[in-house]
Amino acid sequence: MPALRGPTTYDNEPPRNPLLKVNAKVPFNAETPRSALIDAYVTSVDMFYKRNHGPIPVLDDSDRYFVTVGGLVQRHLAISMDDIRMLPKYTIVATLQCAGNRRTAMSKKRTVKGVGWDIGALGNAVWGGARLSDVLKLAKVPEYTAVTEAGGRHVEFTSVDVCKEENGGPYKASIPLLQATSPEADVLIAYEMNGKVLSRDHGYPLRVVVPGTIGARSVKWLDKIEVNANECQGFFMQKDYKMFPPTVDWDNIKWPSRRPLMDFPVNCAICSLEDVSSAEWGKKVIIRGYAFSGGGRGIERVDVSVDGGKTWVEARRYQKEGVPYVSDTEDCDKWAWVLFELQTEIHPPTDIIVKAVDSAANVQPEKVETIWNLRGVLNNSWHVVHVNNAAKKISSNL
Amino acid sequence: MPALRGPTTYDNEPPRNPLLKVNAKVPFNAETPRSALIDAYVTSVDMFYKRNHGPIPVLDDSDRYFVTVGGLVQRHLAISMDDIRMLPKYTIVATLQCAGNRRTAMSKKRTVKGVGWDIGALGNAVWGGARLSDVLKLAKVPEYTAVTEAGGRHVEFTSVDVCKEENGGPYKASIPLLQATSPEADVLIAYEMNGKVLSRDHGYPLRVVVPGTIGARSVKWLDKIEVNANECQGFFMQKDYKMFPPTVDWDNIKWPSRRPLMDFPVNCAICSLEDVSSAEWGKKVIIRGYAFSGGGRGIERVDVSVDGGKTWVEARRYQKEGVPYVSDTEDCDKWAWVLFELQTEIHPPTDIIVKAVDSAANVQPEKVETIWNLRGVLNNSWHVVHVNNAAKKISSNL
Repeated sequence: MPALRGPTTYDNEPPRNPLLKVNAKVPFNAETPRSALIDAYVTSVDMFYKRNHGPIPVLDDSDRYFVTVGGLVQRHLAISMDDIRMLPKYTIVATLQCAGNRRTAMSKKRTVKGVGWDIGALGNAVWGGARLSDVLKLAKVPEYTAVTEAGGRHVEFTSVDVCKEENGGPYKASIPLLQATSPEADVLIAYEMNGKVLSRDHGYPLRVVVPGTIGARSVKWLDKIEVNANECQGFFMQKDYKMFPPTVDWDNIKWPSRRPLMDFPVNCAICSLEDVSSAEWGKKVIIRGYAFSGGGRGIERVDVSVDGGKTWVEARRYQKEGVPYVSDTEDCDKWAWVLFELQTEIHPPTDIIVKAVDSAANVQPEKVETIWNLRGVLNNSWHVVHVNNAAKKISSNL
Repeated sequence: MPALRGPTTYDNEPPRNPLLKVNAKVPFNAETPRSALIDAYVTSVDMFYKRNHGPIPVLDDSDRYFVTVGGLVQRHLAISMDDIRMLPKYTIVATLQCAGNRRTAMSKKRTVKGVGWDIGALGNAVWGGARLSDVLKLAKVPEYTAVTEAGGRHVEFTSVDVCKEENGGPYKASIPLLQATSPEADVLIAYEMNGKVLSRDHGYPLRVVVPGTIGARSVKWLDKIEVNANECQGFFMQKDYKMFPPTVDWDNIKWPSRRPLMDFPVNCAICSLEDVSSAEWGKKVIIRGYAFSGGGRGIERVDVSVDGGKTWVEARRYQKEGVPYVSDTEDCDKWAWVLFELQTEIHPPTDIIVKAVDSAANVQPEKVETIWNLRGVLNNSWHVVHVNNAAKKISSNL
């Protein structure tokens, strides 16, 4: 049977919410506007950021669609939607983030290559589906396996889409086998987003969700799951989504010298204000935003300064009011963002700054220059909003 | 049978290497001098930092010594040294670090409470012993258990020593049950350090080694292992080894508002130079040091600047020459430090600065002020060495 393939043209794209901030029309790449990010703890499907490398596949979940499971496993399979739905269903709340989130702030310092993302290339959703570890058990790979008997160490996901970067081949990526087979790593073969059937933009009918890992590994429109000896050799694993030191430029880049990005660092941003805002002297402003970290590390706290970094106050979490402090990880936002809030008097002109600390005491770097990299990935520098004096402006108009 | 107890006086301390830098005599707390840190990839037992909260217990490994395993498990046990030695033996290379490492640099900004440690409150050793997950299997707790049938979620370790902070009771700490029962978390009940029987200072005859976690959880002179519903309520879990924001002082501290520190952040330091050094203008200097991160995250790279942060060069790893790049975690210094080196021309007066990046792209903060905390824990700010012009000094003496 011939493998399913996505379209090569953009004639059949799905409808999109016009409120999205479009950063590239083809392939369609759009982010959530700042204010919409903090509208709700769970981002709505239509406002969730869209990150694509080709036209959106047109698939159905009929008998024609199945996912093959193969490679270095004892039992090769072709799994239909019915097979997937018969496995135990898990739902997890997980924030997916494009590694290029907050790239524009990095490119202001020095040009970087990539789609220009402000702070909205992420979203928090409730994902429903089967655990990848359960799917792999069907192929006779037991839970918590780092190496299969045949030497498999990585699980590669292949999409049905068509990417220019893969010379017309499909998008693909891999994760370590141990992560794939560990139930608590919560890697899902998802068919639901926020309680509804996946939309086409988000991978209908089946996608991978790898929580705590850069979005690029959560392959959509799934065609193949393969257990391999080596990590995926695709473009997006080997020649993209790697982080280089500031000294490396396009002339001296050596792609094999770096590992593919997987886990990501602690980050936070203010969503209730634009980067240049105005407020009246002495009045209260509401500072709201998101904070999260990779690898299952929760957020320990978010610090806010309204005087350019001289003094700091801890923000309040507001999405889960009444939830008491508990130290067990399942209650500590393992994969999901934290929304924070601080209402405070402000004396413009000034800078409002936010920085978060994760459960491993990792913090964000102060200056974007120190982490600048030519692909503009993983900008997690302090988020700064400059606030001008609104009152002054008015009085000068009198 | 009465529980074993350590001595209450300091009359029977073991002999120590006089080259150690003693930060407190009773309890004995001493660190490795800078130059000795980089003498070898594996730190020698006598030069390894010593961190104690009371007199060193006097124990033997005869039939009188055993460790009890109890709490919310199906089978209670008393395990002798022979029992431990009959379990499969594992050796891991792991760096242990006191959470107070690099505290003195923090206290220079504002007073903090705690033993004054320079950059040597850590060491890298080869630990040999049984896996805690195998010990717990004897008590009928299977591998990869997050909660036992009786509701156990934490594994508490109790020492035989006597601590002032515990009002004469023993030192204790706990880790999550899932970490304790996951073989790849490599938690050991160790009886060997660098291929030899543990020394008294390092926990003879049995100690816990929790790699990737602050040293305070690797309990020495082990008396009890207990599976409990809640995390350990001991002093060093609840009223110490927590990280507070810079705004919290001894007047307004609320201990329950923070989680006990476990995993630690990315860090590095220069060991081949003192904080104020001198060198000749235009001559080459050798910059050597260590870098490591917590939670099993490897070191991605170490950046060095010899012009106060204007330009950066990547350092070379030197402890494992000839090991080719591989992406599999077992070859990526999961629990162990990386030693780095850079030989470069220097133009004093100037500052030499180092900063590391871990596999999750976490970086170190530039300024210690931004992470200052009243207990002075987990200082991982950029390490700066000021270099004066040696030649100038000489010429002014002519």
